[in-house]
Amino acid sequence: MSTLINARPFRLALVQLGNLTAVKEHNLQHARKMVLEAASGKGSADSKKPNMIVLPECFNSPYDVQQFSQYAETIGYVPGEAYNVEKSESVSVKMLSGVAKETGLWLIGGSIPERDPKEGKIYNTSMVYNPQGDLVAIHRKVHLFDIEIPGKIRFKESETLSGGSSLTEVDTDFGRVGLGICYDVRFPEMAMHAARKGCIAMIYPGAFNLTTGPLHWELLQRARAVDNHIYVAMCSPARDMTAGYHAWGHSSVVDPSGAVIGTTDEKESIVYADLDPEFVRATRAGIPVTAQRRFDVYRDVSED
Amino acid sequence: MSTLINARPFRLALVQLGNLTAVKEHNLQHARKMVLEAASGKGSADSKKPNMIVLPECFNSPYDVQQFSQYAETIGYVPGEAYNVEKSESVSVKMLSGVAKETGLWLIGGSIPERDPKEGKIYNTSMVYNPQGDLVAIHRKVHLFDIEIPGKIRFKESETLSGGSSLTEVDTDFGRVGLGICYDVRFPEMAMHAARKGCIAMIYPGAFNLTTGPLHWELLQRARAVDNHIYVAMCSPARDMTAGYHAWGHSSVVDPSGAVIGTTDEKESIVYADLDPEFVRATRAGIPVTAQRRFDVYRDVSED
Repeated sequence: MSTLINARPFRLALVQLGNLTAVKEHNLQHARKMVLEAASGKGSADSKKPNMIVLPECFNSPYDVQQFSQYAETIGYVPGEAYNVEKSESVSVKMLSGVAKETGLWLIGGSIPERDPKEGKIYNTSMVYNPQGDLVAIHRKVHLFDIEIPGKIRFKESETLSGGSSLTEVDTDFGRVGLGICYDVRFPEMAMHAARKGCIAMIYPGAFNLTTGPLHWELLQRARAVDNHIYVAMCSPARDMTAGYHAWGHSSVVDPSGAVIGTTDEKESIVYADLDPEFVRATRAGIPVTAQRRFDVYRDVSED
Repeated sequence: MSTLINARPFRLALVQLGNLTAVKEHNLQHARKMVLEAASGKGSADSKKPNMIVLPECFNSPYDVQQFSQYAETIGYVPGEAYNVEKSESVSVKMLSGVAKETGLWLIGGSIPERDPKEGKIYNTSMVYNPQGDLVAIHRKVHLFDIEIPGKIRFKESETLSGGSSLTEVDTDFGRVGLGICYDVRFPEMAMHAARKGCIAMIYPGAFNLTTGPLHWELLQRARAVDNHIYVAMCSPARDMTAGYHAWGHSSVVDPSGAVIGTTDEKESIVYADLDPEFVRATRAGIPVTAQRRFDVYRDVSED
């Protein structure tokens, strides 16, 4: 049976950020303001403060393949090595680190276009900050959003972005958490791997659209949650019909039984949800799929 | 990209069988009558006949761990070897073979408790017959239904049954089809494997209940369909509130986009649906997850 690693109850806040413009500095300041608002617990049923805050995919730039290069920043994070925020040349790193430290909360900094100057590539990259403001992990979107549904939507991230080559599972004060970005959620292996390695939740900053949102946004979150008996959260930007890409919104948190325990509409808002390791354990005890898998019959995707 | 193996358009009929009793001979005759009715296309929108018929899990006996032994039959099917129906000692084999031949249709014979005298074990086993009445494949339920949700439901198939040790993918005149039984649907690997080996559909005779049915019956089918871009069908018995186990019913067929294209309520009924390889291909072209998987980052469960 998969065992949760160092999990403790915690409250998650998803910032469904609106008011994104072509001006990066504005976007960063607005994101900062909304993180501070989320940190206060404002709008939650009991005004209790969260322990971890999530921003949406691509929160500092337009979601547009032709503009990623212009907005991209060099982060220069090397897994396993300490990162010096002071010396970073990324303004987004400085804002995120600063607000994580100021609030004293864990922060999953949505994603930004990241330039890797050595490789000459641009990635869609999420960053995780601890309450001291340290950058402790990054996730580069593994599965690029290349789709073409005739008459509905065409989008090809691969025209300017490269896909990452690692799964990302981060140890926080509240347990191990798996990270993916948006289209990554369509690939069940990431959540299967994370759950089997002890994660209590998969968190996906993401931006579905008006075609794929109503079809699959909730379905995929519920599927990942029930198949793996973990919590699943997706944090979208708010919808802006004047933007080039129309985000679905509906940021949500799903519990291991498949119930949606936090959600919203398409407007700027904050979604709060309480994650409880005891509920994960009770769900796994009732329908014990995590102990009944037949790896003698099929491969285990989490096998090293 | 996964390629469909020899797929052609076909119509599937799910027989949501009711009127099951403690008398096996009655159950077999009633199942035979309903297969004949399904074969006529009666009740379908255009009265067009189906090409393949599915019966529900455990259609010849009560669904009761204490009674499986009493109802179990020796099938004696050996994969890869020709099977002689005339010499079979199983009355269920004779009925299923006879009605497949009489209708000239493919028949997925739900499941029955199967005794393996050499092993001294009982399995929950599905059988596949071709239009000539030949038994061409069996599937022994791999994942036994052992659950215990306090105050709701407790069921332990493993008290009297053993789990099978093989995945089952069958080549029919209409394409390759993967088989699972009920609780098998909770384990994503079976559908992932089947789809990657060229199956157009996963078919699960199954019997969820009044606790797990409303929670997960449709969710799991839609998840398997969308993650793998295949059709998914589950065929339940009708609900009988005088029986020891209360089946959810709601036999359904889901298409690769996640849409439910055939379903019913809890009463005895027949569900028809048309499966189209071109729709699978169009879905895979639009959101090409089947070509975008990153087996350099995680294992492929269909790898030999």
